[in-house]
Amino acid sequence: MSSYEASKLYRIRHSAAHIMAQAMLERFPEAKIAIGPPIEEGFYYDFDLPRPITEEDLQWVENRMKEIMRGDHPFVCREATPDEARKLFKDQPYKLELINDLVNGRVDDNGNPIAEPAERITLYTQDSFTDLCRGPHVENTHDINPDAVSITFKMPAGAYWRGDENREQLTRIYGTAWETPEELQDYLHRLEEAKRRDHRLVGEKLGLFTFSPLVGKGLPLWKPKGALLRDTLERWLRQVQLDNGYQPVVTPHIGNLNLYKTSGHYPYYKDSQYAPIQIDEEEFLLKPMNCPHHIMIYKSELRSYRDLPIRYAEFGTVYRYEQSGELHGLTRVRGFTVDDAHLFVTQEQLLKEFMDAVRIIQYVFNTLGLTDFRARVGIRDPQSEKYVGNSELWDKAAGIIIQACRELNLPHVVEEGEAAFYGPKLDFIIRDTLKREWQLGTVQVDYTLPERFELEYVSEENTRERPVMIHRAPFGSMERFIGILIEHFNGAFPVWLSPVQAVMIPITDRHIEYAESVAAQLRAAGIRVEVDGSKARMGAKIATAREQNIPYMLIVGDRDAAAGTVSVRLRTDEDLGAMPLAQFIEMAKGIIESKSLALN
Amino acid sequence: MSSYEASKLYRIRHSAAHIMAQAMLERFPEAKIAIGPPIEEGFYYDFDLPRPITEEDLQWVENRMKEIMRGDHPFVCREATPDEARKLFKDQPYKLELINDLVNGRVDDNGNPIAEPAERITLYTQDSFTDLCRGPHVENTHDINPDAVSITFKMPAGAYWRGDENREQLTRIYGTAWETPEELQDYLHRLEEAKRRDHRLVGEKLGLFTFSPLVGKGLPLWKPKGALLRDTLERWLRQVQLDNGYQPVVTPHIGNLNLYKTSGHYPYYKDSQYAPIQIDEEEFLLKPMNCPHHIMIYKSELRSYRDLPIRYAEFGTVYRYEQSGELHGLTRVRGFTVDDAHLFVTQEQLLKEFMDAVRIIQYVFNTLGLTDFRARVGIRDPQSEKYVGNSELWDKAAGIIIQACRELNLPHVVEEGEAAFYGPKLDFIIRDTLKREWQLGTVQVDYTLPERFELEYVSEENTRERPVMIHRAPFGSMERFIGILIEHFNGAFPVWLSPVQAVMIPITDRHIEYAESVAAQLRAAGIRVEVDGSKARMGAKIATAREQNIPYMLIVGDRDAAAGTVSVRLRTDEDLGAMPLAQFIEMAKGIIESKSLALN
Repeated sequence: MSSYEASKLYRIRHSAAHIMAQAMLERFPEAKIAIGPPIEEGFYYDFDLPRPITEEDLQWVENRMKEIMRGDHPFVCREATPDEARKLFKDQPYKLELINDLVNGRVDDNGNPIAEPAERITLYTQDSFTDLCRGPHVENTHDINPDAVSITFKMPAGAYWRGDENREQLTRIYGTAWETPEELQDYLHRLEEAKRRDHRLVGEKLGLFTFSPLVGKGLPLWKPKGALLRDTLERWLRQVQLDNGYQPVVTPHIGNLNLYKTSGHYPYYKDSQYAPIQIDEEEFLLKPMNCPHHIMIYKSELRSYRDLPIRYAEFGTVYRYEQSGELHGLTRVRGFTVDDAHLFVTQEQLLKEFMDAVRIIQYVFNTLGLTDFRARVGIRDPQSEKYVGNSELWDKAAGIIIQACRELNLPHVVEEGEAAFYGPKLDFIIRDTLKREWQLGTVQVDYTLPERFELEYVSEENTRERPVMIHRAPFGSMERFIGILIEHFNGAFPVWLSPVQAVMIPITDRHIEYAESVAAQLRAAGIRVEVDGSKARMGAKIATAREQNIPYMLIVGDRDAAAGTVSVRLRTDEDLGAMPLAQFIEMAKGIIESKSLALN
Repeated sequence: MSSYEASKLYRIRHSAAHIMAQAMLERFPEAKIAIGPPIEEGFYYDFDLPRPITEEDLQWVENRMKEIMRGDHPFVCREATPDEARKLFKDQPYKLELINDLVNGRVDDNGNPIAEPAERITLYTQDSFTDLCRGPHVENTHDINPDAVSITFKMPAGAYWRGDENREQLTRIYGTAWETPEELQDYLHRLEEAKRRDHRLVGEKLGLFTFSPLVGKGLPLWKPKGALLRDTLERWLRQVQLDNGYQPVVTPHIGNLNLYKTSGHYPYYKDSQYAPIQIDEEEFLLKPMNCPHHIMIYKSELRSYRDLPIRYAEFGTVYRYEQSGELHGLTRVRGFTVDDAHLFVTQEQLLKEFMDAVRIIQYVFNTLGLTDFRARVGIRDPQSEKYVGNSELWDKAAGIIIQACRELNLPHVVEEGEAAFYGPKLDFIIRDTLKREWQLGTVQVDYTLPERFELEYVSEENTRERPVMIHRAPFGSMERFIGILIEHFNGAFPVWLSPVQAVMIPITDRHIEYAESVAAQLRAAGIRVEVDGSKARMGAKIATAREQNIPYMLIVGDRDAAAGTVSVRLRTDEDLGAMPLAQFIEMAKGIIESKSLALN
């Protein structure tokens, strides 16, 4: 049971879902009810309704829910035989199907597979409503604050019974519930803010990227400003990696199917790979992973212990299948570039190299101000068969990861089932400014691929030994990472990442020449600058620059031209007044070179 | 007729081929003779032989050829009816087949298609040998200098009659012939040198790239030193392009098949494309060209005349099918990265933008010391149907290209059939140090794709106008270009391109510490340096560094450590003696920053 499932909030939401079902049945007595679980930040319930739901219905239901919550209705649990349950739900076909599945040991009342057939069915009742349910719930409906609850309906809901598009289409009503009205308001505010910050909108507004149906769904086209942002991030990390002894390599975007059969990526990840391409007598895959390519570079020479550690880095673009309904801007795409590296190390080097890889990730996140993160050690689920390799090595690898966390004083949780198929890993989970969690950087220990590819090095004693591999990526995917950065910063990137760092705003046409000469000096100093020489008025130019989140607006008029100054206005609307050009350049260069999050 | 076909050398080689056939028939009276054309730098003749040819046979034939050349045998031309010719060649089945084809108007005596059936057959005779032939020849066998002729046989010849692998396999004997023995010696020397400089050998020796059958044929894996060389070239050109107003973009490596149907790349280039990949209901191609992707970025916004010219640049990797027998190291691959750019310009901007694009190419080649180049204006072959678009626009585009050449004082030749399918182009053909020609940079004018994609911009008069496109690539393909550079420089790259620019050679172990401290200072100055801390002796360390073509060997011993100097030896073996470290750094930085071809 996760900590969320054990929380009061979980019980509140679970109970609110039942209350919503009660209110809905009062509004639509002929409605057929399906399932209604708590979810992250709320709950939902699926209904088969006799007619489309209206805004009025929704308002009625929400009001009625609050009324029930203000009442005094305990949640009462009892057990029933399957036959008693079937009688109780005789007009509810979805419930009858669930009861049959419970009895036959197929799925539980939330639709999840279960192992053991149920002999007794658990029921929960509040007020006039009873549901199939294993709980837990709050004790009484009045334990839920009615002012901390809200429900919504979004078209198109597209919820199918059991998620099966061949079954009945249901109406899903979402709700959210919190402990206090303040928490609800905060949540609704974050929702609004997330909508406003949606990287697809902001990316469009800032001209960062675009999609074209003629190129293909989920395949972003990076426009000049986005390509510049992306390249700036890439060159920065590349340099950090060079400084840490990484060596860039370049490999093709396709590979023989046998390469992935050897690695085990095929058929393990067959469903997320594109169909093979036939070339002469061979089959090729669009590269789903970079590791096998880097392994073949390792294998191209006989390696000695003196050569290790070897650290191959590549911003390698990989292609994976996603259903078109799952695609979402930059954060869920069909082709993305991993800031990948593969380290080949001796057993003795493993701990230090692992810790150094973690330090790079910490440095990267700290530089970007992503300081609210937690670490998760993902180990295999011992029940699952998707993991390869022997359990002794799995334990050894997990031990190294946990030891590294301890030595780095890195708070971490261990979670089963979160490993890669070839070994355990450490993931960094970031909370952005909207408190949303994103899994980003990862460092993984791998004894399996060296075994499968029979990697070797010659030891000091002249024996053949097997290296260990570390897979790691601080950003994870350039596309997804930039999508998250856009939302985190709401498009107002740190100056060093801003595609345009300064805009010259001449007050009238006769100041354009001076503006151009200042721009030339800024460019010579390595500052990315544009001149707004349009016919618009100054106020409109400032509004445009603010809209584009350009860090510095340099307004120039007669006095500036005469004195060699610029009047500096920040995108935060702070006015720094006139300053000598040299002073501005020094300030801006300092901010850019230090990768500061501040503007001055 | 090309200038080569009109040359004396062409006639010498054509005649030498006949003389070789005569000598071969004297050695192998039962031999069946096929065809024997002049080729670039020589000639060949194909034979159907009763037994495998030996080194002894070859020597005999070459000696006999020289004897014939020393004799006095005029080349006599005469015409015959088809029947006379058939009688003459009654024992030569290949010739009989050629006669039939000539009479039926299918192919000429060199196997090329012809339009008109022949009523008379042309024959050439020297001494005892007569061949089907349209000439031209030298007047007399003694016009060929026997000391300027050489023949070779290379296994596996793999020549099929008519190039059809279902027909008879023939023995192809190659020969070369020149006007003077000195020219022959020079040619043989260049051949030897080319073998020694083969980029596949040099690339292996320098650790630049590798191939893996498990990744796939023709798909290079760039090892760290090669990736560094490649990135250095790329970053340089990228900066040159940024300085010239180009904007980098990034696009995916696949695209919907409809994109290429719209562009016309499919089905025109179907044979050089991989089979489409099915994704859901759509078909995708591995990107064979970057242009359609850039066009979709152009189309993502409504463009105004104020936005033009737009110059999108991408080091874009494309994939094209090559038969496995055609693959050759880096110069003939199945995936390569084009230093691509597409300019969208108004008709008024076209000439200037075209000239500016040419200037960048000239600058790139001059910087690399590739100063021996010629320009070729490729226009369409009016007979061919592979070209699209109306002829008025083709003429207009060709006119612009020729005008640009004139204004740039660029000597050029105009050749039919060398255009892209969408428009005429200017190609730069480089002669490397071995006088081999390579087609590299290209600049192309295109009215066709803007038409097919219905590109528009809003003019100053608020009308919708169609932009013109310029396609251009100075390197052409990064892979091929680097292959050529490796051979041109024989692996001794200019210092700025050298993966390792300096190697520290401590005389004994006790100098390693000083060597490391010097290396740290060099690294801080941006110089790529390695320390040879191996157990090898100094002489061996120097030999290794020479082998690796490292520009600077910095030998350090007691005196250097005491005085803060380095003893500088160049890869040319020149010894610059001891110099203060600061002086070396200044010298090396100057050479690197100026991209000098010199070492000091």
